Amino acid sequence: MVSKDDYSHHISQQYNSELDEIRSQFLAMGGQVEKQLGDALDALINGDSNLALQVQEYEKSINAMESRIDDECMRILARRQPAASDLRMILAIGKAIIDLERIGDESYKIARYALALSEEGEAPRGYVETRHIGQDVRHMVHEALDSFARLDVDQAFAVMRADGSIDLEYKSATRALMTYMMEDPRSISRVLNIMWVLRSLERIGDHARNLSEQLIFLVKGADVRHTSYDLIEKALQTNPK
Amino acid sequence: MVSKDDYSHHISQQYNSELDEIRSQFLAMGGQVEKQLGDALDALINGDSNLALQVQEYEKSINAMESRIDDECMRILARRQPAASDLRMILAIGKAIIDLERIGDESYKIARYALALSEEGEAPRGYVETRHIGQDVRHMVHEALDSFARLDVDQAFAVMRADGSIDLEYKSATRALMTYMMEDPRSISRVLNIMWVLRSLERIGDHARNLSEQLIFLVKGADVRHTSYDLIEKALQTNPK
Repeated sequence: MVSKDDYSHHISQQYNSELDEIRSQFLAMGGQVEKQLGDALDALINGDSNLALQVQEYEKSINAMESRIDDECMRILARRQPAASDLRMILAIGKAIIDLERIGDESYKIARYALALSEEGEAPRGYVETRHIGQDVRHMVHEALDSFARLDVDQAFAVMRADGSIDLEYKSATRALMTYMMEDPRSISRVLNIMWVLRSLERIGDHARNLSEQLIFLVKGADVRHTSYDLIEKALQTNPK
Repeated sequence: MVSKDDYSHHISQQYNSELDEIRSQFLAMGGQVEKQLGDALDALINGDSNLALQVQEYEKSINAMESRIDDECMRILARRQPAASDLRMILAIGKAIIDLERIGDESYKIARYALALSEEGEAPRGYVETRHIGQDVRHMVHEALDSFARLDVDQAFAVMRADGSIDLEYKSATRALMTYMMEDPRSISRVLNIMWVLRSLERIGDHARNLSEQLIFLVKGADVRHTSYDLIEKALQTNPK
């Protein structure tokens, strides 16, 4: 005979495995987006138009992953009525997949500029700056996803801080590119393509920051958007409501 | 004596008024963001630096509205366990406020460029293009919010379609600005400021499109992101699951 306790136990096991499944789908989507970004940057730096075309192909599978996770989150909300940390996890993932999908969009754009630039042949000035910021942004996205995998709020907070230095690098790179354009007006259209790539990278940095904010919300229950670093540090020392 | 029916009736009345409250807070936030965008564009076109400074002041109140609505959505999810269309409304609003907040961010940036341009005095070429796209984008945001107020999926679908023509306008304006820069390299930095404004406007168009997608999800239960117009039209003819 199956007792009521066995039955509840069974339900809760199934529920837990649904939650695990969402988390692992989310991390799989993250891995895919990270690869798309890395390949887009490699395609750009190496003028590899085949790789750029491949990056554009990822788009559909990433969108499909987003829709699947989103559906699954809604299903769990409707059927399991999660509370406390489970509810926060569903909500955090529901928002984080939007950022992942947008990182995918920006990587798609970078691949488009990689194609445009590889057709023009000559490597324009501004590549050094792009490579540098590209590496930093790639690292940020990796760390943000890793903090999700390990539920590590300190790591997530470090990503948030890193976004500030990306913004500074972005500004100085933009100024350098502006000088190149003035020195050689014939290069304007090419340098502008690099400028758009930098803009996309700066955006991706913002999205990585958002991912980290969601992870802090998930673990700590604290909404750290629009909040100073000092206040965030305080929030990290407290336990969830 | 209070009967059980009276009690349930009371609970459900309170629940309904909580849902209404979230909806009206969302529309109020939308109104504020719409005003911020309109003022940012007016500040830009009229070189009005006072108005631009004012626009930057809205930022905090819009962020606060976002946090409040977000908290409220979470509270309802945790305590009321909404189902079907109520659940969709909470989820749609939870996503739509992210887009609203980002429209606010972009308007803030436009105000920053308005300040930079008004300091330089001379109106650079490219204003005509900006005014034109600015009006269209403003209209899109207005219609997207209006479709939320009236739960009008056809209106929302029209906004989605409008985003396509914004993207075309954006491309042709960018080409025109590139020509101005080549013709007069000394204007590069000023024209770039206009270019960034256009980029922000194009983004705002994307966010208005996202708002409309959320409204269609809310009313029809259909996820119309990453979907062709033909398939969306079909989805609009069916009833929610």
